[in-house]
Amino acid sequence: MSEQKADIALIGLAVMGQNLILNMNDHGFVVCAFNRTVAKVDQFLNNEAKGTKIIGAKSLEDMVKKLKKPRKVMLLVKAGSAVDEFVKNLVPLLEKGDIIIDGGNSQYLDTQRWCKELAPTGIHYIGMGVSGGEDGARYGPSLMPGGHPAAWSHVKPIFQAISAKVNNEPCCDWVGEDGAGHFVKMVHNGIEYGDMQLICEAYQLMKDVVGMEQDEMAEVFENWNKGELDSFLIEITRDILKFKDNDGKHLLPKIRDSAGQKGTGKWTGISALEYGVPVTLIGEAVFARCLSSLKDERVTASKLLPGSSQKFSGDKKQFLEHLRKALYASKLISYAQGFMLLREAAKVHNWNLNYGSIALMWRGGCIIRSAFLGNIKDAFTKNPALSNLLLDPYFCERISECQLSLRQVVAQAALLAAPAPAFSSALAFYDGYRSAVLPANLLQAQRDYFGAHTYELVTKPGTFVHTNWTGHGGNVSASTYNN
Amino acid sequence: MSEQKADIALIGLAVMGQNLILNMNDHGFVVCAFNRTVAKVDQFLNNEAKGTKIIGAKSLEDMVKKLKKPRKVMLLVKAGSAVDEFVKNLVPLLEKGDIIIDGGNSQYLDTQRWCKELAPTGIHYIGMGVSGGEDGARYGPSLMPGGHPAAWSHVKPIFQAISAKVNNEPCCDWVGEDGAGHFVKMVHNGIEYGDMQLICEAYQLMKDVVGMEQDEMAEVFENWNKGELDSFLIEITRDILKFKDNDGKHLLPKIRDSAGQKGTGKWTGISALEYGVPVTLIGEAVFARCLSSLKDERVTASKLLPGSSQKFSGDKKQFLEHLRKALYASKLISYAQGFMLLREAAKVHNWNLNYGSIALMWRGGCIIRSAFLGNIKDAFTKNPALSNLLLDPYFCERISECQLSLRQVVAQAALLAAPAPAFSSALAFYDGYRSAVLPANLLQAQRDYFGAHTYELVTKPGTFVHTNWTGHGGNVSASTYNN
Repeated sequence: MSEQKADIALIGLAVMGQNLILNMNDHGFVVCAFNRTVAKVDQFLNNEAKGTKIIGAKSLEDMVKKLKKPRKVMLLVKAGSAVDEFVKNLVPLLEKGDIIIDGGNSQYLDTQRWCKELAPTGIHYIGMGVSGGEDGARYGPSLMPGGHPAAWSHVKPIFQAISAKVNNEPCCDWVGEDGAGHFVKMVHNGIEYGDMQLICEAYQLMKDVVGMEQDEMAEVFENWNKGELDSFLIEITRDILKFKDNDGKHLLPKIRDSAGQKGTGKWTGISALEYGVPVTLIGEAVFARCLSSLKDERVTASKLLPGSSQKFSGDKKQFLEHLRKALYASKLISYAQGFMLLREAAKVHNWNLNYGSIALMWRGGCIIRSAFLGNIKDAFTKNPALSNLLLDPYFCERISECQLSLRQVVAQAALLAAPAPAFSSALAFYDGYRSAVLPANLLQAQRDYFGAHTYELVTKPGTFVHTNWTGHGGNVSASTYNN
Repeated sequence: MSEQKADIALIGLAVMGQNLILNMNDHGFVVCAFNRTVAKVDQFLNNEAKGTKIIGAKSLEDMVKKLKKPRKVMLLVKAGSAVDEFVKNLVPLLEKGDIIIDGGNSQYLDTQRWCKELAPTGIHYIGMGVSGGEDGARYGPSLMPGGHPAAWSHVKPIFQAISAKVNNEPCCDWVGEDGAGHFVKMVHNGIEYGDMQLICEAYQLMKDVVGMEQDEMAEVFENWNKGELDSFLIEITRDILKFKDNDGKHLLPKIRDSAGQKGTGKWTGISALEYGVPVTLIGEAVFARCLSSLKDERVTASKLLPGSSQKFSGDKKQFLEHLRKALYASKLISYAQGFMLLREAAKVHNWNLNYGSIALMWRGGCIIRSAFLGNIKDAFTKNPALSNLLLDPYFCERISECQLSLRQVVAQAALLAAPAPAFSSALAFYDGYRSAVLPANLLQAQRDYFGAHTYELVTKPGTFVHTNWTGHGGNVSASTYNN
């Protein structure tokens, strides 16, 4: 009994794991640290963890013995095979009511699989999205836990204590069953891709179209960060633009323009396609990273394919204000799309998602943290059944004020030959979404013409008919609509 | 021996299957027809197949007995479970060297799986894309076979005989190993989604921005079909615009604007994300269908979200010429993206794809058939190693002539509030592709700032470094780049 003193164990002593442990220790919890390469445990205890209440374990068995019941074991290891291996090894050591928490970047379908597989054992499984990078892990991350609901009350005190706070409210709450936590984290990352792409396009427009210098651009982002665009990503963009290398020159132009990716943006795009939700801006952001990586091909193409001879001739101050509003409008459209995806996935998986609470979890601690997410939280608090963010009175008013600026930016980018895939897709979605009538009637006519897929009559909803368009084709329609 | 008289068997007597059998019969092949519901075989023999050389079978065993060796059995059944079931039941009845051909809309990964599973049995598997709808199946489809190469010489005479011909060349040739045939068919369908969406956007711009009547629009498509846009889809759009219902009114406005989809466009988008290829136009086309299906939400949004008060004030004739050129440019960009995806998948799967031959297969018989595909064939015939269609001298010249018009169309759509997701994404890709420098340097700086992901130095390619941007963060970079 005397051995059972740790509140929680954490496996995986890379930076994220170490920082989460130190964060838990700061909040009065006793953590037992473990790592596959066991030497790393002592190294950690003798250095970063020196003088704390943190304890170590020599093996999984040793670790389990040191835990208070119900035991809580958190994994901060590589998604996929490493998670699978640790879970398999832990199960025989644990008992009914014990809890495994996967805090890595796992795919939500893997989390769903583990929840299902462990259900008969009575061991509770939690898949938890953790955002905020190293700094967040150390001083307050955004935490998005989902899985077996019975486990929540046991881990809630720890996770809400270590999470970021906004107005004293923790950026951590129960998301939903099985893979819901990791799904919400995945959408968070997708939105992060979109936000970053929008900022990059704004930067390129300032630099290449308006012809601004870096310090001037830094000042613009500094100002934007004081208004409704106030956010972590705008803030660090300002810092990056200001940052000078050892030689006194700006560092930014020395960085190669080929973007890497971890895959979570890609997963969001794939989920959007699978669930049939038009998450166009994130899709374009992911593809923009793919295109950026074709550096050599782009250099070749730049010598062959012409752009525009038109130069920017507008008012710089006015254009920058258009750009600010365009960024706000596009961001809102992207978040609206992200929440559409959450809503559709919740329907499919029977998750009872609390959208206001998700906005609050993203409000602080994570990469997309912003004042804007506070407004999103308010929108869902006022109307939890809100079908789309764009239809909330506050945001409806905001986008009404900004949409003409978005039109100006997309038109200018088109005419002056600056690539603006995210701004363009935001506007195209906005105009499609507010179209009572889209040209899909022609598309349905084409599908019926060549494939006898049938179409629905405007005047008789639910009635699908086939037309013999050519006079010589058959009158037989394809057997199943929409299939 | 006397029983072995059929050249090939075909299972699945829905319209596509029946028409392919009749087509084979017309070309002198003896086909043995079979269907899961066996009554349908007699029905077919006594009606559509009456007076032909077509024979029927009462069971799979009976069917196999009636086939010349090596036996060829073609499936035209529902993709997925029905294909799996028939293949499993066929295998014990067949012997080494016999051939199973799946002519349905199977996912290429399923075809890949069957090729692998059947390899040890010596039974050859072919996954063949079939396009052209009922009419194509009856009088000349586009056929895209891939799988075990040893099988090709045995089925080549039949498939090249029944396929569409362009200048006496068959729109059917060997594509590549395992899933290559179905992959090429999938990309064909994705491109079809893109073409249809572009036509819809052009229609909407004529109707809602320029304010044209249907007969006038029909005339425009009629003219377009005489020039470089000459294609099946432009032709049927003209017919659809002209088509009048029994009451003497145009049928098109009576069709509900909610698009259906079979899923192959979605698969193309998912593959593009998985292989990391920026196939943006097809992605937007798929999402446009998803958005169209949210009819009720769009109607609500149309009452709340404002557009533009600006009206079209340009020269109609000039704008229509811009629109024609924009359509041509966007189509070219979409096909360039599609071939980029083929090239990347070929690299991953070790397929030796002949791009000119693929263009020829699409040149006739299928839904995207067009004069334009003849030019694509020429481009790849001249330079089989062509890295991108946009870099081919002919197409480079063509897009140089058209790109300013595409800019006009995207700018006008933005300013006049018409949704043009496909046109916009085409232009954004074009401008990104021809950018020697993209703003992804900022993106990499951001990723390094908050996640220590490191970045590459322009002056030292291959050298990845981490910067301590804040002065207070760690100097340790994340353990793996790009991961």
